[in-house]
Amino acid sequence: MNRICQLFGIRYPVVQAGMVWCSGWKLASAVSNKGGLGLLGSGSMYPEVLQEHIRKCKQATTWPFGVNVPLIYPDIEKHMEIIIREGVPVVFTSAGNPSIWTGHLRDNGIIVVHVVPNVKLAVKCEERGVDAVVCEGFEAGGHNGRDEITTMCLVPQVVDAVSIPVIAAGGIGDGRAVAAAMALGADGVQIGSRFAVTLESSAHHHFKKKITQANDSATMLTMKQVMPVRLLRNRFFDEICELENRCADVQELKDHLGRGRAKKGIFEGDLDNGELEIGQVAGLIRDIPAAGDIFDRILGEYARTVSILNRDAFFKSDEVL
Amino acid sequence: MNRICQLFGIRYPVVQAGMVWCSGWKLASAVSNKGGLGLLGSGSMYPEVLQEHIRKCKQATTWPFGVNVPLIYPDIEKHMEIIIREGVPVVFTSAGNPSIWTGHLRDNGIIVVHVVPNVKLAVKCEERGVDAVVCEGFEAGGHNGRDEITTMCLVPQVVDAVSIPVIAAGGIGDGRAVAAAMALGADGVQIGSRFAVTLESSAHHHFKKKITQANDSATMLTMKQVMPVRLLRNRFFDEICELENRCADVQELKDHLGRGRAKKGIFEGDLDNGELEIGQVAGLIRDIPAAGDIFDRILGEYARTVSILNRDAFFKSDEVL
Repeated sequence: MNRICQLFGIRYPVVQAGMVWCSGWKLASAVSNKGGLGLLGSGSMYPEVLQEHIRKCKQATTWPFGVNVPLIYPDIEKHMEIIIREGVPVVFTSAGNPSIWTGHLRDNGIIVVHVVPNVKLAVKCEERGVDAVVCEGFEAGGHNGRDEITTMCLVPQVVDAVSIPVIAAGGIGDGRAVAAAMALGADGVQIGSRFAVTLESSAHHHFKKKITQANDSATMLTMKQVMPVRLLRNRFFDEICELENRCADVQELKDHLGRGRAKKGIFEGDLDNGELEIGQVAGLIRDIPAAGDIFDRILGEYARTVSILNRDAFFKSDEVL
Repeated sequence: MNRICQLFGIRYPVVQAGMVWCSGWKLASAVSNKGGLGLLGSGSMYPEVLQEHIRKCKQATTWPFGVNVPLIYPDIEKHMEIIIREGVPVVFTSAGNPSIWTGHLRDNGIIVVHVVPNVKLAVKCEERGVDAVVCEGFEAGGHNGRDEITTMCLVPQVVDAVSIPVIAAGGIGDGRAVAAAMALGADGVQIGSRFAVTLESSAHHHFKKKITQANDSATMLTMKQVMPVRLLRNRFFDEICELENRCADVQELKDHLGRGRAKKGIFEGDLDNGELEIGQVAGLIRDIPAAGDIFDRILGEYARTVSILNRDAFFKSDEVL
């Protein structure tokens, strides 16, 4: 049996990424009901909002779901308290040190997964008792590592370095990429951008629509001096480039960023002034269907890809070289 | 039959990238003799040197081989003249406009492949009569596009946009990645870094040895203001970073780069002052075997990966959703 399915008690090793301003209880429960693992994105939620989403998610699905917690979140103690009290079975932590929360969460019976951008942190996660890692490649949307390692290069190197299950993330928007990730040795996949552009995503319609018009070159990793983030190119992105081109210092960049830019762009639909966090796979996204339809589509593409790959293999293992 | 095998008249759709200071007749003929397509890297050769390598390659193999020609090469007319006169069957062009040489080469019976970093150029190649494209992802070594599109994102988008055969490149160092590239829809693969670190590669032993010690984070895309290039981090790389951090202009960067940096690093083995061009997949390279052994290893890993993927598929196309 697939190790990710076994770990979470789900039917397909497909995780819907916890994303700010996109993944509330509607999206997470839709994915969990299809047999994947839906995640609430707590990074854009006040504690009471998170509590409400957890409760609604429990009402909307009897299947396991989880919460993504960026470890840089200021009110993190309250978040963790609510997660434990509400009996959420799975927590994905990101953007921080896995040593701090893993033990406490696991003592409370919670499965802990940590997001890593390189081999070094993956090995540390395993040492600290983390149950699985998400290898997030350079092509992923939103905040990203400084090493700029792509999914293609990161997944096999992490798979070789740890024995815990590995979930591939970054650049996975259809079933071909799911098959590719599994070929690289991943035990499962995490899909963000594609689920951000569904009916159940709480992102603004303007944001979703904009993504469906994006091409392959529409996103860039930027703000590397502050905290690298992959954004759709827009006016705000251009302003940041301009500041960087004249060697503005970190404080100037932070001042220009200000607060609430992601909310403005993703949730309020201000396409000029908002931070439009999305992955490079945006260029493959052309429609805004229900999350369940996306789930079915991806499973179908995956199955077709694997069977075509097997049928058309240009070299078989029983051939003599 | 596989479209790349058919196009080139070879047994396996595995191309060895034409690389400066690495791929002369020894490497190219070794790969062609194994059933792949070996490429001479003309970017580091004077015309008379190229002619010598072509002649030696013809003596060393009866199988097809090709020449990679960077279109920015100053003496390109002489290169093309030699290639046509010597009857080289395949030319891979890169770093330039496919409109300029494709017609002339094809009129002389030569198969033309062009290297592209984005969908737009791939579509243009097809319009201009190019026979196949290489999609080179952000993770690839050496010179690279400005869009920073990774192999995982680039390949499926190009496959969807053109009907000519697509060769995936960037991040492919073992058979798992070959299977992943084929899952993404590629018709074949181009492998550079892994073949640069073989006995037949003309790179300096110090350079090869250094690559075997690299980890996942060892390379970075740099010099984006001049011409983006992926290098192993070393003293020269650090000096470029320093210049960039203090907002040096393009001329200062060019002056510091000077001439012959790649030769110094790759061919002469000056690990401190040379430009050490290599892909992000360097972290997976641990030994310096014969190119033929690498070829066999990759085919074996590929076949195993495809059969495991098929056996362990978590969802089959005959299942009802």
